[in-house]
Amino acid sequence: MINQHTIGKGLIENDFLRQFASGYTRSERQINGLLESDAELIRLNKDLVLAITTDNIVEEIHQGLYDDPEQIGWMSVIINLSDLSAVGARPLGILSNITIPIDTDTEFLSRIGNGISKACNKYGINVFGGDTNTGEEFQIGAVGVGLINTPGRIITRKGIENGDLLFTSNQLGSGGYYALSKSFDDYISSTQEFYPDARIDQGEIIRKFGSSCIDTSDGFFAAASNLMEVNSIGFQLSLELDQLVEVSIRESLKTIQTPPWYMLAGPHGEFELIFTVNGKKMKEFLDAAKAIDWSPILIGEAITDPFIFFQIKGRHLKCKPEEIANLYNLCEGDVHQYIQELHAIHKSWNH
Amino acid sequence: MINQHTIGKGLIENDFLRQFASGYTRSERQINGLLESDAELIRLNKDLVLAITTDNIVEEIHQGLYDDPEQIGWMSVIINLSDLSAVGARPLGILSNITIPIDTDTEFLSRIGNGISKACNKYGINVFGGDTNTGEEFQIGAVGVGLINTPGRIITRKGIENGDLLFTSNQLGSGGYYALSKSFDDYISSTQEFYPDARIDQGEIIRKFGSSCIDTSDGFFAAASNLMEVNSIGFQLSLELDQLVEVSIRESLKTIQTPPWYMLAGPHGEFELIFTVNGKKMKEFLDAAKAIDWSPILIGEAITDPFIFFQIKGRHLKCKPEEIANLYNLCEGDVHQYIQELHAIHKSWNH
Repeated sequence: MINQHTIGKGLIENDFLRQFASGYTRSERQINGLLESDAELIRLNKDLVLAITTDNIVEEIHQGLYDDPEQIGWMSVIINLSDLSAVGARPLGILSNITIPIDTDTEFLSRIGNGISKACNKYGINVFGGDTNTGEEFQIGAVGVGLINTPGRIITRKGIENGDLLFTSNQLGSGGYYALSKSFDDYISSTQEFYPDARIDQGEIIRKFGSSCIDTSDGFFAAASNLMEVNSIGFQLSLELDQLVEVSIRESLKTIQTPPWYMLAGPHGEFELIFTVNGKKMKEFLDAAKAIDWSPILIGEAITDPFIFFQIKGRHLKCKPEEIANLYNLCEGDVHQYIQELHAIHKSWNH
Repeated sequence: MINQHTIGKGLIENDFLRQFASGYTRSERQINGLLESDAELIRLNKDLVLAITTDNIVEEIHQGLYDDPEQIGWMSVIINLSDLSAVGARPLGILSNITIPIDTDTEFLSRIGNGISKACNKYGINVFGGDTNTGEEFQIGAVGVGLINTPGRIITRKGIENGDLLFTSNQLGSGGYYALSKSFDDYISSTQEFYPDARIDQGEIIRKFGSSCIDTSDGFFAAASNLMEVNSIGFQLSLELDQLVEVSIRESLKTIQTPPWYMLAGPHGEFELIFTVNGKKMKEFLDAAKAIDWSPILIGEAITDPFIFFQIKGRHLKCKPEEIANLYNLCEGDVHQYIQELHAIHKSWNH
């Protein structure tokens, strides 16, 4: 069993970041506080806010989750665009960072470049530049650059009021299922492709009408935990926990007797958005969503009690989402132990 | 001996980047072309240009050039601020990227953070955010974010006219000497500290009056080669090559019989600026420099013949600077072989 002592003090990654950043002073130009936004929001002047983020792929490559170079190139763009989408910024372009072992073959690099190009073309953005280094371990990342025109609303992870309605941009679980299928490819025959989208258009609508937003790149529980921590609130879910997961994935999971909610536990999420909307803005929000043919999914509401309340097979349950989001970290990346921990929780919830 | 076939086709790093970026389309917002600027220049609106750059420290740590965590933190900021200085941008802040092995101790990380803080405080900027990953090999980098208010001049590596005067912001060689002293610490007893500055104020003046600018982070010869390549020109130096090197370093090198110009050969440069000014702007330029108590060093002028013409001990010589800048790469990082190659060139120049 994992060390219980370290459980229940918030997201481990956040504790680390708060400590690492403790000596830094903050810019008066910066709109968001530490850990309060998926992308950094920097006021340039009264008309413009720069949205900027940097995110790298290291662990996913090391663990073999991403092994196709086109996919790796694609993902290096999407992880950053997704952060921009969560602040409702219009992306302009990226800088691309790559560290390659000296014997890397040019075909591999060329396919990485194709993946980057495809993602950029899809979102109408460009590679502005970047940096290339030689190192022991291959890694890749990018910097996402976007703009928000103001006056106009700004959105971060912070701003939820009690009673705000909780949404996801789509059903979840594709990131978790992809990681499961790559980790247990003997059991799950059909490894699906994983070329997720960034929810740019949806994010712009959420910025106009929502009260908070975060992406699910680290999984649903990590996202919910971040929103709860920064807003000092909890969530009451209005549907069964398993129903957050894509129907087709729920079907596939039946054959291997795996509870769907495991797909929400992280740490490899998809790139959907979780966000809140105040009831007073609901009509405008839903009209704007309809105009782009998007059906956001209402999953619950914000409450004062700092737990997630949910149902599994009609049983009323509650949890601290960070305890689930931290599990993989506490298992130090041991996938088998991690699944055992999820089983233990599932069992405790079902009797 | 190194493979002669690969010599004389431009900077190896540039060839690689041109190939890697060949599939990318360029943004209409971007002012600079590929390899034409130290930082990317993105037009946000008629009043503002965003200057953005990302640079990482991988090889220098791997080779043991930087081993003190405060220095590593400091350098991760300065390498990016130096790129911003070469476009005359006012830096706003950085994003910090770090990849750490899982067993990295917190004291080490805390000292890295101190180095980052010190550099940011010195330049009145802030850490906006960043990304932290766990990986096999420690590496660190950052993203530099700056602004240029327009209307007002823009400067890149491109724009030199025949006859423009060539300057350095200061005497050079401290980067090369630092690398030499770290690589041969049995021979050079006094390893000096290396906490270079970024030439922000100088860069702003150069942007107003100069015709091109680049930093010397990869050494003098790489910088000169980049300027020559992008402008299709050459340079006639007006002083002895060795005189580009700091007087105190020249003194130290006497005791180990090392020609001073080796300190210019790269690839570990300092963070000075090399730039050109058209004769018509000279008075204004020198007045502005004087106003900040800065004495730029006139070292030559731009000519049409694509070589660097220079003197060593009164002998008139010429070279292709990329042949010298490429040497370390062609020696695949073997410092002893590299020094032998420099000796061979030095010998060929002296009889």
